[in-house]
Amino acid sequence: MSENEDAVPPAARAEVADAVRTALAKHGYARLTTAKIAAESEKSEAGLYYYYDTKDEMIGAFLDVAADRYASEFEAAAAGDPEARLRAVCDSLFVDREDEDASGVNVAVMELLSHAPYNETLRDPLETLERNALDRIADIVADGVDQGTFREVDPEGVAALLLAAGNGSTGFYLALGLDDAGAALHDQVDAYVDWLVAADSA
Amino acid sequence: MSENEDAVPPAARAEVADAVRTALAKHGYARLTTAKIAAESEKSEAGLYYYYDTKDEMIGAFLDVAADRYASEFEAAAAGDPEARLRAVCDSLFVDREDEDASGVNVAVMELLSHAPYNETLRDPLETLERNALDRIADIVADGVDQGTFREVDPEGVAALLLAAGNGSTGFYLALGLDDAGAALHDQVDAYVDWLVAADSA
Repeated sequence: MSENEDAVPPAARAEVADAVRTALAKHGYARLTTAKIAAESEKSEAGLYYYYDTKDEMIGAFLDVAADRYASEFEAAAAGDPEARLRAVCDSLFVDREDEDASGVNVAVMELLSHAPYNETLRDPLETLERNALDRIADIVADGVDQGTFREVDPEGVAALLLAAGNGSTGFYLALGLDDAGAALHDQVDAYVDWLVAADSA
Repeated sequence: MSENEDAVPPAARAEVADAVRTALAKHGYARLTTAKIAAESEKSEAGLYYYYDTKDEMIGAFLDVAADRYASEFEAAAAGDPEARLRAVCDSLFVDREDEDASGVNVAVMELLSHAPYNETLRDPLETLERNALDRIADIVADGVDQGTFREVDPEGVAALLLAAGNGSTGFYLALGLDDAGAALHDQVDAYVDWLVAADSA
């Protein structure tokens, strides 16, 4: 983030985040330039640099907005049925390869994650994004266990397993296009959730 | 691969593969140069280029050797007990972050996977690597199901779930260092394998 991230007006931050998302989905991180971000935005390159000092800070804005959106979607659904909420989360974690936009974003986020050990500007917002995802899935599972509709599992463990499997599907399925393995994975995740919610037979 | 990959003598291929592996673990893909590969090898840069035309072909040699090794390790264990084989596979899929070398390699392979949609030279050997992993895990699960010691699961589905979860642990655990989530994931995978092999209570 620039000197004071709160100084970026929310509308400008959202616009930059949207442009970064579209550009990342098309080009990935290694080929991303601020010119390509500007091409997806109403703003010029100079307009982008008015708010953010570097390309990685613009990417940080995209990750922050994604993390915020994730958190607020979960909050909006907090009163719902845990099974329905968990299945909705799985739908968003396990992207269909035919959804080219979401596939491109997930492949780019995988690339960003691979830079995290070397890049502090990316590491912090990536950590928030992943932490938010884990916490929210664990909340849902904990609710299901408390209500007796889920088996007595470890909510943090199930959250980590589902997030890892969702993120990991990006490599062999979304990036390499092993469609048979992607289909087998999606069925297996459904079966896992079926097992999880079959608390009566536990 | 260069014009004719069979033309590279096995010892030279293995030496290049080893040097690429070490250099990737240290530097990742974006910062990798042939000078850095040569620094991990007895060979000079010119010596590397004698066998391979590009850096990506050297990386391809590393991926091919990894895929071959994976396949031959599985073959060596093919007569063993399916449960022991599956637990051994999980040990290799779910790397401990304290193993810095293996962590570095896995983060680099995640980065390579993110380039697969854009890079044909990397895509083919990555596909072989992932396909070998999936096939071998599915073989083990199928053996366990056939022998009646595993539940009646879909071997391809379980293989895809375990490989996805292993690969996906690279992001939030190995690259970002969320150790609590990594530990919870490892426990959950153990619990999943416990469930899988509890065929008697199925």
